[in-house]
Order: sequence, then C-alpha cells, then structure tokens
Amino acid sequence: MSRFWSSLTHGLSPYVPGEQPRMAELVKLNTNESPFGPSPRALEAIRGEATDTLRLYPDPQASALRAALASYHQVRSEQVFVGNGSDEVLAHAFAALLKHDAPLLFPDITYSFYPVYCRLFGIAYETVPLDQAMQIRVADYRRPAGALVIPNPNAPTGVALSQAEIVSLLEEHPDAPVVIDEAYVDFGAETAIPLVASHPNLLVVQTMSKSRALAGLRVGYAIGHADLIEALTRVKDSFNSYPLGRPAQAGAIASLEDEAYFQQSRARVIEGRERLGRGLVGLGFEVLPSSANFVFARHPAHAGAALATALRQRAVIVRHFPAHRISDYLRISVGTDGQIDRLLSALSDILGSP
Amino acid sequence: MSRFWSSLTHGLSPYVPGEQPRMAELVKLNTNESPFGPSPRALEAIRGEATDTLRLYPDPQASALRAALASYHQVRSEQVFVGNGSDEVLAHAFAALLKHDAPLLFPDITYSFYPVYCRLFGIAYETVPLDQAMQIRVADYRRPAGALVIPNPNAPTGVALSQAEIVSLLEEHPDAPVVIDEAYVDFGAETAIPLVASHPNLLVVQTMSKSRALAGLRVGYAIGHADLIEALTRVKDSFNSYPLGRPAQAGAIASLEDEAYFQQSRARVIEGRERLGRGLVGLGFEVLPSSANFVFARHPAHAGAALATALRQRAVIVRHFPAHRISDYLRISVGTDGQIDRLLSALSDILGSP
Repeated sequence: MSRFWSSLTHGLSPYVPGEQPRMAELVKLNTNESPFGPSPRALEAIRGEATDTLRLYPDPQASALRAALASYHQVRSEQVFVGNGSDEVLAHAFAALLKHDAPLLFPDITYSFYPVYCRLFGIAYETVPLDQAMQIRVADYRRPAGALVIPNPNAPTGVALSQAEIVSLLEEHPDAPVVIDEAYVDFGAETAIPLVASHPNLLVVQTMSKSRALAGLRVGYAIGHADLIEALTRVKDSFNSYPLGRPAQAGAIASLEDEAYFQQSRARVIEGRERLGRGLVGLGFEVLPSSANFVFARHPAHAGAALATALRQRAVIVRHFPAHRISDYLRISVGTDGQIDRLLSALSDILGSP
Repeated sequence: MSRFWSSLTHGLSPYVPGEQPRMAELVKLNTNESPFGPSPRALEAIRGEATDTLRLYPDPQASALRAALASYHQVRSEQVFVGNGSDEVLAHAFAALLKHDAPLLFPDITYSFYPVYCRLFGIAYETVPLDQAMQIRVADYRRPAGALVIPNPNAPTGVALSQAEIVSLLEEHPDAPVVIDEAYVDFGAETAIPLVASHPNLLVVQTMSKSRALAGLRVGYAIGHADLIEALTRVKDSFNSYPLGRPAQAGAIASLEDEAYFQQSRARVIEGRERLGRGLVGLGFEVLPSSANFVFARHPAHAGAALATALRQRAVIVRHFPAHRISDYLRISVGTDGQIDRLLSALSDILGSP
C-alpha cells in the first residue's frame, strides 16, 4: 500500500500463474505446456530474426501474421486480432467488449483470470455454477447478460461444449458479445470460428502457447466480426502499439505453415491424454471427460492438496486449486509418455497400490 | 461503432505510431530507431532461445532480467519492473500510479501517447506549455498536481532537463508520483535513477528500443521505490502474467552484458547527431539543442508538411506532426553517415541550395 498508488491499484487481486520452477529432473505437469517442442520451422524463423533488423520496430499491425491466420482460418484479415499471448487478447476483449450495464456471465469454475480482469476494468459479473457433473449447462445462461465469456473446452475441467450448444448461447444472447476462449480447442473440441460469419456477436480467442508449443514466445489471437476486432484494436492502440516483437511474428507465421507437424503434435497429446486418463482410472481416480491437454481428476479417498504435496515430494508438479467445489481435484497436464509413467508411478506409490 | 462495444471503446482516440513502410532503398528516419544493430551477444542469446524449451512459459517475474537490470543500475531487484516495451510500462504506470483526483501534468508538446493513456484510463490531466524556446520550465509546474509525467529528454523536441531541475520537480511535489520517461536518456541527458534512493515518489522509465537497438524485441523497464514497483506488478499481474517471451528476456540480459558495444553505439549516434545538426544549420534550419537520437528542426522559409512530403518523394521519411506549435518542425532520427548524407542532399535539392 502506498499513498502514491491510484485508487484502482489498492483493490486489485492479481492472477497467480502456475509456478515455473527451475529444478532439474522435475516432471512439470502444472501449466498445460506442450510436452513436445514447437515446429522446427518456427524455431528456424525465430533464429532468422536475430539480425541487425531487430533495431527496427516490428509491424504494429502484424499484417503478415494476421494474413496468415486469416488464410489458415478462412476469414479476412480485418477479422483477426493478435496479441501478446491470449491473456493479453482476453484483457483487451474484457476492456473493449465485455463491460456493460448488465453483468458479464461466466462459469463459477473456470479460468481464474476472468474475475481478475473484471476487477481491473470495473466490470460487473455473475458466475453461473457448473452442474453436478462439472459441466456447463447452456440453459443456466438464460438470464439477463451484458456479455458472456465461456472457455471451450472449459478450464480447469477440460470438458467441452458441442457446436450446437455454442450456437444456442449465441442465439439466446443476440445483443451481447460472446467470447469463446478456445485456448485448448485443438485437443478435441470443435472451434466456433465457422460461426463468426453468421454471428456478429461472437469473438473466438485462441493461443499458440498450447497446441503450437510456443508458450515461451507469447502469441495469441482473436477472430470475429470486423466491428469487434476494431474495438480490440482501438484499445490495443491506446495501450501498446507493438505488443508482438519480430521473433514472435515470424515464429508464429512459420508455425502456421507447418500443418503436418501441428497435426502430429496434437494427435500425440490426445493419445497421451487417453493413456493418462486410463492410468488414473486404474488407480481409482474419477476423471472428467477431457477435450484439452490436461485432465481434471479426483480420488474418492484422498484430498487433492495432500496428493499434490505428495507428488511434489516425488518431483512431480501438478496444479491444485484450493477453491470451493474443486479442492479435491488435481489438474494434470499431458506430458510425454515418460512423464506420464513417472506421474502414475508416483501416484501408485502414494496410494499404496501394487 | 458497434452496439457490442464497451462504452469506453467509443471514446478512444488511439495513438498513431510512425509508419513502418516496406520500401527498399528507403532512408527511414521517422521512428528514432538505432542506425546500428543490437549487440552481437544479444543476437546470439536470442538464437539460443530458439529451441524446444520455447514450449515452456517464460519466467513471469523475469527474475534474471530484473536482477541484471538491478545490478546494472545499482538498485535492488524489487526496484525493477519490466514490460513489453516502455509503452507497456508507461501504460501500467498510468493505470497504477497516475490516476488521482488532482490532474496529471505533462508538457503540451511531448510524447503523444500520454493523452491517449489518459483517455484509456479516465485520468484527468492538464498540459503545461513549453516556453518560447520549446523547453520545459520547472517553475511552470508549481501548481496542484495529482502526478507528473515528464520525458527527459523531451520528445519530439530532444531538449533535456538537468538533474537539478528534476530534483526541483520531485521536491516541489513530494506527495505526487513523478514519472521521468527516459526513452532517449542514453544519448546525452543525465538519468534520474540515482535519485530513486532518496525520492520515494520517483519512477524512471527506460527502454531497450533506442540506445540498445532492440525495438524489434520489445523490452522496456521502470526503476523506482519498491512500493511503486509493487503497484506496477499488481496491474501487470491483473492484465497479462507473461509479457516478455523467452527470446526477449535472454536478448535483453545479453545486451546489458555488452557494455563496450553499448557505449560505442551511443557515442556513434551522438556523433551522427552533431553532424546532422551542423548540416541542417548549414541549410538554414533552426535546430533545437538535442540530447536524443533525433533532432527537431524547422526552416524559416519552408513549411514542415511541405518539406516532409518533398523528402518522401525522394525516398527519405522523417516524422512531421500536424499539431499546434510544432507543425513547422521536422523530427529527424539520426541515421548512419550515409543516411545523413542522403537526407542533407535531398534537403539541399528541395531548398534549391548549391
């Protein structure tokens, strides 16, 4: 606290990201990173930017990257916004589109950054409880709303909505902007991007941090009607003209050009998730049906916090949220086969199974 | 305009950065980039980050970079904040520290992003006119102020304040946060960083885009009392946990480690500025005394807009601001010797001199 702070600053409760420990030999399954590296073409493109040209500002509009994303997703460049990770894209979306007189709606169990943005921007919000199966029920969103933000698949549960359910949300709220946060969509959910053409209230947010294994580069994007993109651009250009450096723009473009690598990586993560899920079920866990690169699981006989601590003692880090309704769960990122084996073996040890 | 926008969005007038044209053979002297590349060690460090490790998030606290900056500037890590270019650092400073009941003060002729931030964050502000010599007069700031932001040297004039004048500002406003924006300080002004120890209301903002030739990488930072840094961190962690990717953190650290290259580059820019200034005076221009990597100059017989247009026709781009008091001026970045020659030759041609 300080007399020099703006009054806003006193009221903030910042988001706490998963830790990034620097222990060797650690099995790090706590921040949903890809177990496989980025496309070699992306790495080559990043190396290619390490020249004297770095003395020049990057393209503030990131035109080449936006054109590449537009081509990839079959939309126009004016329908594409890029930012410094999807967290920055979401931040601009909250400021530009989600502050209205009626409350913003999002699930009670969801990405914990959403209420943080609301406090930062003074956005009134209401949370809508997941049902008993920890799923989003579209019917529960039939209430007055200034806007909606829904992750698909949801985090930290990993559970996806169908495209028909997304259409219902959009059509039940034709006057409200609806942000679908698809950070994990490439691991098994259906993207809402094709709905953008017919729904001017839809903004879809994606990231290159997960399925494209570029968390260390910071590239996220949004796709929607050009009017929505203009709102994001106005806020961005009132905040920071150049959020994406030259290595980030070049690496992201090259990643999009390597479709074979992308498809192979995500298929391997999906295989790993299925194997991880089966292993956990074999140890007695209840595992929610995941369409993401992580699973959300609880053991009927063991508290989540105790399991997370015991795993940590065995150099395996998973994420545990000490929050209402989910404190018994662990969120476990899909690792390599070797990492999955180490996790299952550590859990087996902890649970005293053979 | 769209019914889906937050009301904030309607009222924004975004900052317009200098253009980044893609013409070959262009003499680009419009955005104050370094004419020389970054340290080869920075380039090597960036290349070294293009590995599978990019699948992992960067350190959200950028601890190694903050420690390197702390060591370089002889402060503690808790006194250092880093962001995605100094524009993002400034944005967080405006939100976290500069919004108070009394108005924020800054010069009438200054970095044109300041009023943009004020509109974004709803900050009341008053501008204080430069004097007739286009200089900041400290005595003119003796008025009620919630906070101050002063670039030193000022942009786009290039004129610096002395450290004694900065001390006066700080001591005349002990209850107001004072941000000194030192984007160009390495080209001849005196940094206020040593004053941080004795002035808890001082925040100094610097960038690696100019004197370290890393505009394409996006790294800026702030140094101040730990209480001020905590305010910036709270806002940053409510907005985007990971603004600096792995290549940016590594490149910035390596740049700081190459002091010889840094000193040589800035000395060459200062030499170039003196030569550019002499050349302009020789062509009849009035040139403000610059401590930056650009000069601000006007010709008594030629309008600034016309000169800028005529230069563009000769493939030389400088920055012209069509604003009150400065519309007769050109802001010309210091280029290489060859670029300075091309500029002076083009101006000579335009003015009809021999």
